[in-house]
Amino acid sequence: MKIARVQPFEAIAISRLAHELAEAGLDVIHMEFGQPSTSAPAAAIAEAHRVLDAEAMGYWESNPLKARIARLYADRHGVTVDREQVILTCGASPAFVLALSCLFAPGARVALARPGYVAYRNTLSALYLEPVELPCGEAERYQVTAAALAALDPAPEGLIVATPANPTGTIIPPDELAAIARVCRARGIRIVSDEIYHGLSFGAPAASMLEHEPTAFIVNSFSKYYSMPGWRLGWAVVPPDAIDAARARMGNLFLTPPVIAQRAGLVAFDCDSELEGHRATYARNRQLMLDALPALGLSHVAPPDGAFYLYADIGHLTADSVAFCTALLRDTGVCTAPGVDFDPVDGTRFIRFSFAVSTPEVRAAIARMTPWFARRQAEARGTRA
Amino acid sequence: MKIARVQPFEAIAISRLAHELAEAGLDVIHMEFGQPSTSAPAAAIAEAHRVLDAEAMGYWESNPLKARIARLYADRHGVTVDREQVILTCGASPAFVLALSCLFAPGARVALARPGYVAYRNTLSALYLEPVELPCGEAERYQVTAAALAALDPAPEGLIVATPANPTGTIIPPDELAAIARVCRARGIRIVSDEIYHGLSFGAPAASMLEHEPTAFIVNSFSKYYSMPGWRLGWAVVPPDAIDAARARMGNLFLTPPVIAQRAGLVAFDCDSELEGHRATYARNRQLMLDALPALGLSHVAPPDGAFYLYADIGHLTADSVAFCTALLRDTGVCTAPGVDFDPVDGTRFIRFSFAVSTPEVRAAIARMTPWFARRQAEARGTRA
Repeated sequence: MKIARVQPFEAIAISRLAHELAEAGLDVIHMEFGQPSTSAPAAAIAEAHRVLDAEAMGYWESNPLKARIARLYADRHGVTVDREQVILTCGASPAFVLALSCLFAPGARVALARPGYVAYRNTLSALYLEPVELPCGEAERYQVTAAALAALDPAPEGLIVATPANPTGTIIPPDELAAIARVCRARGIRIVSDEIYHGLSFGAPAASMLEHEPTAFIVNSFSKYYSMPGWRLGWAVVPPDAIDAARARMGNLFLTPPVIAQRAGLVAFDCDSELEGHRATYARNRQLMLDALPALGLSHVAPPDGAFYLYADIGHLTADSVAFCTALLRDTGVCTAPGVDFDPVDGTRFIRFSFAVSTPEVRAAIARMTPWFARRQAEARGTRA
Repeated sequence: MKIARVQPFEAIAISRLAHELAEAGLDVIHMEFGQPSTSAPAAAIAEAHRVLDAEAMGYWESNPLKARIARLYADRHGVTVDREQVILTCGASPAFVLALSCLFAPGARVALARPGYVAYRNTLSALYLEPVELPCGEAERYQVTAAALAALDPAPEGLIVATPANPTGTIIPPDELAAIARVCRARGIRIVSDEIYHGLSFGAPAASMLEHEPTAFIVNSFSKYYSMPGWRLGWAVVPPDAIDAARARMGNLFLTPPVIAQRAGLVAFDCDSELEGHRATYARNRQLMLDALPALGLSHVAPPDGAFYLYADIGHLTADSVAFCTALLRDTGVCTAPGVDFDPVDGTRFIRFSFAVSTPEVRAAIARMTPWFARRQAEARGTRA
């Protein structure tokens, strides 16, 4: 067998360029990564200060935090999760490795939406699993559907589902989520559900896959809603039949998550007003972006039900999203992510904006982009004329 | 292919029992895990306080820290490491996953010493690599030898080497390390060198494998010498031909290490006097343990050249190290690790003491263990009589 080839992120390359240009004097607005620009809640930071002075911080797992996470599923989703099912991880990425490693052996076929978070495809490849990409466009609201899953022949061993999704922010409606779960159960497909953007929705909140399938493997984290990306704390809710496998892998492949993040994370659960304030900012930013779409000439965008992304079709302006994003950065200082990171086929004609920055930054970005997009549009019309 | 079965740590089960017994009133001395009981250096903690108030902490990698780590190899080992070769990780465990994933494809055979750190074998299994255990006893100083490697037929694709080693603390002498590197080069064996206990030696310091083989994949961490286990910060020095593969895997499988640990870790490099103080404590503890061996009736121990372990043969007292360690815990409160975690074959007759606790705790443990071991010895003699 050959060693797996894993793709790098294009967004990292463009972000590196942005930092170089910033050092040379360009005023950069960073809309390329999916991370809050806000810090952890004040009370969580205060707890971190306390822990620094009070504890030696060895290898440690917080049982109170596991219990608090388990309670979240009762409170928010009406499902029972045992504390023993919760595994704390160094962010969602290793939780995802844990999920795939526990559920699938090399060669297994795992279905997922295209477009989707780049690490799904890459982690599958790194673990010698076979990604089965389901093309999801405007008609499917850019999400996996029960019908598409039912039509797959042969049935895949697994499914990765994400709601709200990256790069689109699209939420799978409850009925469709239930239908997906039914198809999976009927066809013996194990589900990994990435719920990292839970808490960040602008209409109805997203359902957890656990509401429909108690044996789903759930991945979540403190990096988005809780505004703690650099703290590196995530969790998995592990199906009962995989607890031993997940624990053994955690202990050997990752050991424990950071003590300070575990202590602060527990406190973050009690910081609703501050965190809802961030969500209000994202809602405001989202509306500003949606209002700006006509001026930018963008008429096809994925429905941004949640998360903090706008995924827009720029096929009328370019057939090379990397070149497009690079030019946008050089000309305006607005740094974005090219669609190719999320969709190796159609991503050449998509762009992802992250609006998890401040509202003044969103306003500034729109002000800079409006004339630039107008110019590109005029040029494109000229080319076609 | 079947999903890999990964063994749990016995030491975790015995540690859990110890915590239960402690809640019921037993005075426990924790010598079961390999972690300093001291906190991070004071200046590192101060830096963490500063960062908490000064930064939002997003996904981030510290270039200054990478450069500082690269310099370590020039300063300490006289070898040139480029900053681009350094990858920062959430502890040594994921660095090890990174190493194996970059260098080997499923089915590859990787040689390692038995006894050895349990996660080597288990991570190999989880990644569908085949552990080729080299039995290493008193004659081999419990370490891999060039002769044993040269005799392996067919040659394995890889070798994991650890010096100082866990569970023994044994350091491979410079000549032998050079000979191992020569055999690997001649036979095309890729080397993963676990140098996590570097800095903790009680005679001559351990050499880095990079002194002998520039294409070795090095794993290290802030968890041992720098006394920061719960901060979750480690690093890899990646061979030039694997940099792209390692970066892509890091971004997808793990993302970034904790910001606060990276900031504090850089400061920890300037805390020599405090860290050398810890080493002096370990040296004192080690001598106390060595002095106590005759009273404990233990005459066969691995040479504890470094780290903070004593790995002792208890074959004259038991054929079941788990039962032995459990009885020792219940009767005396001294919690240790049974050899079976490190050696699935001969580990039934070994015990590992970690002396990374305080000196008063080591004294107390010896005082409690001396009559207990004497009793076990008398019983064993009685059984044999």
